[in-house]
Amino acid sequence: MITRIEPGPRYSSAVIHNDRICLSGYVPEAAAGQSVAAQTADVLAQIDETLREAGTDRTKLLKALIFLTDITTIGEMNSVWDAWVVPNQTPARATVEARLAHPSWAIEIMVEAAL
Amino acid sequence: MITRIEPGPRYSSAVIHNDRICLSGYVPEAAAGQSVAAQTADVLAQIDETLREAGTDRTKLLKALIFLTDITTIGEMNSVWDAWVVPNQTPARATVEARLAHPSWAIEIMVEAAL
Amino acid sequence: MITRIEPGPRYSSAVIHNDRICLSGYVPEAAAGQSVAAQTADVLAQIDETLREAGTDRTKLLKALIFLTDITTIGEMNSVWDAWVVPNQTPARATVEARLAHPSWAIEIMVEAAL
Repeated sequence: MITRIEPGPRYSSAVIHNDRICLSGYVPEAAAGQSVAAQTADVLAQIDETLREAGTDRTKLLKALIFLTDITTIGEMNSVWDAWVVPNQTPARATVEARLAHPSWAIEIMVEAAL
Repeated sequence: MITRIEPGPRYSSAVIHNDRICLSGYVPEAAAGQSVAAQTADVLAQIDETLREAGTDRTKLLKALIFLTDITTIGEMNSVWDAWVVPNQTPARATVEARLAHPSWAIEIMVEAAL
Repeated sequence: MITRIEPGPRYSSAVIHNDRICLSGYVPEAAAGQSVAAQTADVLAQIDETLREAGTDRTKLLKALIFLTDITTIGEMNSVWDAWVVPNQTPARATVEARLAHPSWAIEIMVEAAL
């Protein structure tokens, strides 16, 4: 009934329960330290990959919680986000400012999706 | 299986999946820039309206995540919140400080409810 | 269909809906003002207790949202967290910095679990 994707000693990349998947807060990997746009694209590509592994995709997003280290970069983040989400299939969303665990990260995104 | 309320190009006001609804982080509209109490009442009225559209109400709240731009205003927020929630039908809740996307917003609330 | 654990006038300690439980953001009680490690242990013990009351346990955690008032204490928090979670049964997780409602609190954790 619970299936974990990449379960680690500290957290799992994602956890599936019934017909819903909860992803961890994803942060940039290759794009860490680069522009907010590049970091956003990096994070969204990772989310795509995990959703794909779970047999779902971005059209089934339920909610997204977005943390930016500088809320004034929301426009730059949105420019990448808007091109990524599917019209009429967008999730509920909140975006707030928060300092993140590594100084090279400008964004962290935590989503839930339906399977 | 997924129903979206006011789906926009960036996010939806709310997303229904099975018997649960996830609302976006709601921010003040008419009360933006006014007192924390007024902004809280504004946000809660918007939440009421979306829950009503979905055929549910505040007695079925499951969880709430509240962001305040100044955590020391939590007492003022609570004075409005306490009058709004229904005794014995209160949600799980967390309240933390975070800078929000527009300087005229003092509060953002993201909730989930059962249908 | 909705069962609330310790429902109060402001929030409930936890809310059960179908086979999922949402806990409030838990903060330190006895360990408030002490080390981040002590506060983390305090919060996790409270989470254990609520999960137990609901008939579940930490092996069924789905997601965790962790707020630290100082993100540079994440290592100290993780040292306690890592010993608490069960290998291969870890939740999805996000950890960000946020100021909390009382200055003696260094950490707040909000989790969801399956029943």
